[in-house]
Amino acid sequence: MNRVIRVNMSDLTVKEEELSEKLIYDAGRGLTSKIVCEEVPPKCHPLGDKNKLVFSPGMVTGTKAPCSGRISVGAKSPLTGGIKESNAGTPTSQKIARLGIKAIIIEGMPEDDSKFYKLKIDKDSAELLSANEIIGKGMEQTNKHLISEYGEYIGIIGVGPAGEMRLSAAGICFNDPENRASRYAGRGGLGAVMGSKGLRAIIVDETDAPGVKIQDKELFNQGQKKLVEAIRNHDLTKPGGVLNAYGTSAVINVMSEVGALPVRNFSKGRFEGAEKTSGEAIAEAIEKRGGGMTGHGCHPGCIIRCSNVYPRPDGSEHVSCIEYESDWAFGANCEIDNLDDIAELIRLCNDIGLDTIETGAAVGVAMEADVIPFGDGKKAIKLLEEIEKGTPLGRIIGSGASVTGQVFSQYKVPTVKKQSMPAYDPRGVKGIGVTYSTSPMGADHTAGYAIAAEIFGVTGKLDPLTTEGKVELSQNLQISTAFLDSTGYCLFIAFAIMDIEDGFIGVLETINGLYGTSFTAEDVSKIGMDIISEEREFNRLAGFNEVNDRLPEFMKEEELPPHNNVFDISDSDLDKVWDENK
Amino acid sequence: MNRVIRVNMSDLTVKEEELSEKLIYDAGRGLTSKIVCEEVPPKCHPLGDKNKLVFSPGMVTGTKAPCSGRISVGAKSPLTGGIKESNAGTPTSQKIARLGIKAIIIEGMPEDDSKFYKLKIDKDSAELLSANEIIGKGMEQTNKHLISEYGEYIGIIGVGPAGEMRLSAAGICFNDPENRASRYAGRGGLGAVMGSKGLRAIIVDETDAPGVKIQDKELFNQGQKKLVEAIRNHDLTKPGGVLNAYGTSAVINVMSEVGALPVRNFSKGRFEGAEKTSGEAIAEAIEKRGGGMTGHGCHPGCIIRCSNVYPRPDGSEHVSCIEYESDWAFGANCEIDNLDDIAELIRLCNDIGLDTIETGAAVGVAMEADVIPFGDGKKAIKLLEEIEKGTPLGRIIGSGASVTGQVFSQYKVPTVKKQSMPAYDPRGVKGIGVTYSTSPMGADHTAGYAIAAEIFGVTGKLDPLTTEGKVELSQNLQISTAFLDSTGYCLFIAFAIMDIEDGFIGVLETINGLYGTSFTAEDVSKIGMDIISEEREFNRLAGFNEVNDRLPEFMKEEELPPHNNVFDISDSDLDKVWDENK
Repeated sequence: MNRVIRVNMSDLTVKEEELSEKLIYDAGRGLTSKIVCEEVPPKCHPLGDKNKLVFSPGMVTGTKAPCSGRISVGAKSPLTGGIKESNAGTPTSQKIARLGIKAIIIEGMPEDDSKFYKLKIDKDSAELLSANEIIGKGMEQTNKHLISEYGEYIGIIGVGPAGEMRLSAAGICFNDPENRASRYAGRGGLGAVMGSKGLRAIIVDETDAPGVKIQDKELFNQGQKKLVEAIRNHDLTKPGGVLNAYGTSAVINVMSEVGALPVRNFSKGRFEGAEKTSGEAIAEAIEKRGGGMTGHGCHPGCIIRCSNVYPRPDGSEHVSCIEYESDWAFGANCEIDNLDDIAELIRLCNDIGLDTIETGAAVGVAMEADVIPFGDGKKAIKLLEEIEKGTPLGRIIGSGASVTGQVFSQYKVPTVKKQSMPAYDPRGVKGIGVTYSTSPMGADHTAGYAIAAEIFGVTGKLDPLTTEGKVELSQNLQISTAFLDSTGYCLFIAFAIMDIEDGFIGVLETINGLYGTSFTAEDVSKIGMDIISEEREFNRLAGFNEVNDRLPEFMKEEELPPHNNVFDISDSDLDKVWDENK
Repeated sequence: MNRVIRVNMSDLTVKEEELSEKLIYDAGRGLTSKIVCEEVPPKCHPLGDKNKLVFSPGMVTGTKAPCSGRISVGAKSPLTGGIKESNAGTPTSQKIARLGIKAIIIEGMPEDDSKFYKLKIDKDSAELLSANEIIGKGMEQTNKHLISEYGEYIGIIGVGPAGEMRLSAAGICFNDPENRASRYAGRGGLGAVMGSKGLRAIIVDETDAPGVKIQDKELFNQGQKKLVEAIRNHDLTKPGGVLNAYGTSAVINVMSEVGALPVRNFSKGRFEGAEKTSGEAIAEAIEKRGGGMTGHGCHPGCIIRCSNVYPRPDGSEHVSCIEYESDWAFGANCEIDNLDDIAELIRLCNDIGLDTIETGAAVGVAMEADVIPFGDGKKAIKLLEEIEKGTPLGRIIGSGASVTGQVFSQYKVPTVKKQSMPAYDPRGVKGIGVTYSTSPMGADHTAGYAIAAEIFGVTGKLDPLTTEGKVELSQNLQISTAFLDSTGYCLFIAFAIMDIEDGFIGVLETINGLYGTSFTAEDVSKIGMDIISEEREFNRLAGFNEVNDRLPEFMKEEELPPHNNVFDISDSDLDKVWDENK
C-alpha cells in the first residue's frame, strides 16, 4: 500500500500509481521535495501549468508514534521563485497515511481560471467534483459546508479566497481535531499554487482505511515508548511544561527580555506590549473568560499540546490558535498590544486563507510606509478585510512583504528570497540569521531553529549576540530538520531528542520498526543533507546563487536596540554553510 | 575643463572635482556605467543611501556634430535590481557639455524623506536649494515654474510625482528645445532613484559657458560633414524621409503588417487599429487640425527630426511627442485605437514622470487581469490618474509590469529582468528577443536594435522568423550600441552609418578631432565590449546569472498569431552572446 494519487487538472483526470521503489523510504519533506525536483521544471512559472503541488504525510504518520501528525506540502513557490516545503499538524495527515497514501500530486491547470474543483479521496478511489458551492467562501464556511455534506469524520484540505485569488501569501489550510479551519502549511504561497490549479478543497474519507502496516511491532513500540518518555521529561515539552501551559506565545516575553523580538517592522528588539500579548496573558484570559483552552493539540496523539483556543470577552470562541509567530506578526511587529485585535487578525487570516507571518510582515511594511499607523489594530483588521475583498490594496498586502515593500518603495523590508522573516531578529540572535539566509526556503525559523541553542540552551547555551559557532549550529540544525520534516514528527520533539539521547534513539526505532530498516544517526545526517542538496540544486537551476543567501541591507547597517547590534556574520561565513558539504 | 559635480544629499554638500585621468575619454554610457560600477555596491538597496545617480553628456555633445544631444543617466535600477543606463535627447545635455561638465554624481540621501531639493548649476558653481515650491507638482507646472524663476534659457532635469513617490516606473525628464517637459530617460526607474535622493530638479544655466574645446578642428569638421552627408542620404534618416515625415510611429503599420506588433498584452502580432494609430494618421491629424508639427527635433542640431507635436481636435497643443514605443504601449498593447486617448495617456506619463513603455506594459497586464477592459482608453486615463494620486492601484501600475503581474497573479507578464518589453514581439522578430534576453539592461530594444536588419534590411535583410545569425546580430549591435550610447549621438544615426561607410568614418573623425585621439573601428568594438563586460560584472555581483538572460515562459509556449511562432532560440545559444567574449 504505497498509493500515489496523481490529479491532472488540465483534463480533470485522476490516476492511482504505486510509489516507485527508489522513493519507498521517502515521506514528508523528503518525498515532496524529491517529486518537485524530479517533475517540476525549475524555471517554470509558479502559477503556470508546469508547476506541481505535492502532499505527503510523514514516515511514521498514521501510527501511534507521539506528535507525528504532520503533513508536508511542496511546489515551486510563487513567493520566492524557488522550491518550497511547508508543513502542518493535522488529523488529515494521519487519515491520508492510514489510507496507504504516500503522496497526492496535483498537476496541470484548467483552461478556465474561474472554475474550481474539489478532490474526494477514500480507500478505493479519488475523484474530482465541482466546488461551485464553496467558491468565494471563507475557510470557516468551507469547512462547515463540507462537513454538512460529508460528515464530521473527514479530513479537509482547502484554500480560501486568498488561494482563489492566487495571492503569494496564501497558505493551505487543514482542519484540527475539532474540524476548525486552523492548521496551516502557510509559508511560500502554496495556497496560490493550489488555487492556480483550480483545486479548492480535498476531502479525505478514511472509512475502512487499512491503516499503516508495521514491520517490527516490538521495535516500533520500544521506540515509541522512549520518545514518549523523553517528551514527557523535557522541561519545554512535558505536560504542564511551558509550551503546554502557555503555548508557544510564552516566547514573547522571553524574546522581548532578550532584546531580539522584532518590534515595529524590525526597528527594535524589546516590546512595551510584550506582557499584554504574552502566552501568560493568553492563558490568563482563557482562565478568566472561560470558553477557550490552553493545552490544545493540533492532532490526536500529540502529547506536547502547545496550541490553544482563545475566547472573546463574553467567553465565546474567537480563534484557534494564537501561536507565537502569529501573535508576534500582528502584535509586536505592528506594535499592536491588544490580544483581542490580534486574535481577530489571526481569525481573518485563517478564514481568508493567509499565512499569518507573511501577512503580518506585509502589514508591518505597510505601516512603515504610513498606509496605516503602527499600533492601530482596528485599521489592521480593515486592511485584512481588503484582502478578502480583493481590492488593489488588499492584493498588495496579500502578495507578501517583499511586494508590499516594492509597491510602497520601502527600504526596510525584512525578507530573504522574498519570504518574510519570522519572529526573531537576526541582529539579536545571530544563528537564526544564518538559517534565514541560507535555507533553500527563504527566511524560515523552522528550517534550522538556532533559537533552541541560543535562547533555550538546548544542547548547551550559545551567546545569541556572538557570531562564533553559528554557521555550524545552523548547518547541523538545517540538516537534521530536513530529516525531521520527513518523519511526520513535530519539530518540537527536537527539544527533547536533542537533550535526551534515548528520545532520539526512540525516533530511529519507530522508523526502523515501521519500515524494517536499520537507519542510524549517520543516515539521518545523510538523508537530511541529501534533501537540502536537492532543494538547493532546484533553486540553482531556478536562478538562485549565493547573493540570494543574504539578509537585507538594513540588517547590516541599522543597529537594533537595546543591544545596538547589527548582523555581522560575514558573507563568506554564510557561504560556508553549504560549501563544505558540496 | 573636465568638471565632475558631486552632490551629497546626506549632508547637502556639493563638491567640484576634475575627472580622473583614466576616465578622460569616457562619456555618456561609458562614463555613467564606469562610475556606477566603481562606486555603487552591487548588492545595495537601489533606494538606499549607497546607490548613486550619474549624469553624463556624450563624447561629442555640445559641439555642432549632428544629432549629438543625448545625455546618459546611470544607477542601480530599482526596477531590475541590476545596473541601468537610460538616455535621452535634450538641449540640456548640450548645455552641460558646454559648461565643461563631464559628470554629475548624486549620492547619499536626506534623513527626512519628505524633503526635496533642486540643484542649480552654472559656469562657476553648483548649489542645492529648497524645492518646496514644486513638491507634488507635475512636470508641466514644474518646468513653467522653473522657467519663471530662472528664465527660458535654462536646461531642466526633473522628476515628477512618480519620482517623488519612488515608483519603479518613474523616469527622469528633460526639457525639449521649447522647454516642454517631454524628453525622458525613462527606463529602469531612474526617476525613483532621483526621488529617493530628495532631488526634485536640476537647473542648468549655461550663461558664459566656455564651450567644448576641439583639438583638431579640421578633422572634426571633416567628420561632421561626412556624417551629415550620410544622414541626409539614407532613406530612413534623410529630411523628408520616413522618420522625418511620419515620426517613429511610421513603424506601427510596418510591424503590424509583419505580424510582430505586440497586441493585447503580447497575445497577437497584428493590430486592427494599426492604421488609426499609425505615424501616417498622426501626420494627417497634424495637417488637418493645425497647431502641431511633424519633423520636430528633440535638441538643436538634429537633422533627422523624428519627433512631433500632436494637437487636440481644436488645434491646441496636446502632447510632444507620440513616439512609436509610447504609441504602441498604450495603443496596440492595450488595444486602444484612439490617437487622442493615446496622446492623453502619453501627456499624463510626461507630466507624472513615468516611463511610457513600462507604464503601458503595466496597464496591459492590468487589462489581462480584468482590472479594466482592453481597448478602453478612458479607463486607462483614469488608471494613470490613480498613479498621480498615489492610490494603491496607482502605485501597483507605477511599479511596472512585473509587480503588476505579481500582485494580480498573472501568467503572461512580458518582462526580462523585470523590465517590460518594448514594441516588438520576439516570437515574430527573433533577433530582438536575443537583445531583450541578454542585454544587461533588461528588455530593451535600444540596447541592440536587431529590427534594423530584420525589418528594415539595414546592412542586409535577415528573415525575422528564423533563428540563424540572430545571436551574432544582437551581439554585434549590443557592442556597437554601448559605444554609440557613449558618443552622445542619437541611435538613429546607426541606420546611416551602418549602410554608408563614410558616415561611420565621420563619427570616428568627429571624436578623434575633438579629443586628439586616433580611435579606429576596432577600438569601437573594444570600448563597447568593455562597457558591457563591466555592466554584466555589476549584475553578476548583484546576483544575476544566465537564468536572468531568458524570456518569460509564455513566449516559448504560446504561439503568436498570425505566424503562430514561439520564441525558439535555445538557452545555450542565448548564452553564446556573452560567453564567446569572456
